[in-house]
Amino acid sequence: MVKRRLATINLSSRQKEIIELVKANQPITSEQLAKKIGVTRAALRPDLAILTMTGILEARPKVGYIYSQKPSSNLVFDYIRKIKVKDIMSKPVTVDEQTTVYNAIVNLFLNDVGTIFVENDGYLVGAVSRKDFLKSAIGRTDINKVPIGIIMTRMPNIVCVEPEDSVYIAAKKIIDREVDSLPVVERVSEEDGDKVKVIGKLSKTNITRLFVKLSENKN
Amino acid sequence: MVKRRLATINLSSRQKEIIELVKANQPITSEQLAKKIGVTRAALRPDLAILTMTGILEARPKVGYIYSQKPSSNLVFDYIRKIKVKDIMSKPVTVDEQTTVYNAIVNLFLNDVGTIFVENDGYLVGAVSRKDFLKSAIGRTDINKVPIGIIMTRMPNIVCVEPEDSVYIAAKKIIDREVDSLPVVERVSEEDGDKVKVIGKLSKTNITRLFVKLSENKN
Repeated sequence: MVKRRLATINLSSRQKEIIELVKANQPITSEQLAKKIGVTRAALRPDLAILTMTGILEARPKVGYIYSQKPSSNLVFDYIRKIKVKDIMSKPVTVDEQTTVYNAIVNLFLNDVGTIFVENDGYLVGAVSRKDFLKSAIGRTDINKVPIGIIMTRMPNIVCVEPEDSVYIAAKKIIDREVDSLPVVERVSEEDGDKVKVIGKLSKTNITRLFVKLSENKN
Repeated sequence: MVKRRLATINLSSRQKEIIELVKANQPITSEQLAKKIGVTRAALRPDLAILTMTGILEARPKVGYIYSQKPSSNLVFDYIRKIKVKDIMSKPVTVDEQTTVYNAIVNLFLNDVGTIFVENDGYLVGAVSRKDFLKSAIGRTDINKVPIGIIMTRMPNIVCVEPEDSVYIAAKKIIDREVDSLPVVERVSEEDGDKVKVIGKLSKTNITRLFVKLSENKN
């Protein structure tokens, strides 16, 4: 996984004190702040620089410092948004369109995945989730005879992502379209037209694993 | 969802210049840096304060500034770790232990969830995932007659979390135990002993949704 640096800081107790003083007395000048804290104005300068740069305080010329209501964060979110699908995707499990529903389910269990992608001639033609399988297993489908092509969600009704897409975009598609995972696809040649090949899978599991790594600062 | 403030900054071009100068000339004193940049030492003070507070530079007494190899991030991860299960959990779907497997599956579809929790006398006794349902639907189980108590994973073999736990802990349990969701539980009284009531559900979907919100800075 790609290593990146983040510029984040823990506020000192003096900086927290300044924030509280500004909240209670805004607008307040640096002279007034220095007097309340009992230090020189020069001594406060680095703290005030940090607090305005982080967007926590706003410095209004000739007025003083005010506590900013707008969110200060940006780097965290930039950081998260820079993680790409290819950084965390898994191997996809695929079957041919002629495979029976039963055999596809066996495949699902053997590979311990939640979604199977369906190919025809090496190209993505469909996707089947555990939910789709369960529906056909309790319905009237003869799962030992019916090919998976009958029950799958068929292209172009499948939401895909590409390896260079951000994980954020993938996560948003998963939530908005209410699916468990997305095929990661690539176009092989111009002649293929809209046809794509599946080269990976990005699921809620990948995102949960990423969340754990982000929390552990191991990304 | 709880609002929190993050102290993160975008480095200025002067700060980036300082980093490059330190990388190329370390260890380097603030006097030397000021000379190279063509400003006074006082003018550099806020920038150097920010760069050491973020952990990007390390100030070694009597030696000078060096570029730090250790990761500087902490607030991002602290921030993520402070989000609690109760902040993002969903409503749980529960059925009684005597419910047939078929009716539980219907319940699963009607509520569009991936896991059903099973109660007896109001207490959590088991959990059944889509995967468990699919296994029994394609197996020899007569899903119209067999009660869900027969196929469920039974307490105490269910991993639980509490509302005050961090989402990080929940995500880690989901990954380590390879489950899709966890019951959020609470002990009602001392007399209950180990018995717990289900008050929520935390799933990979909740975490994926949180990931989207974190990326969008809407948390």
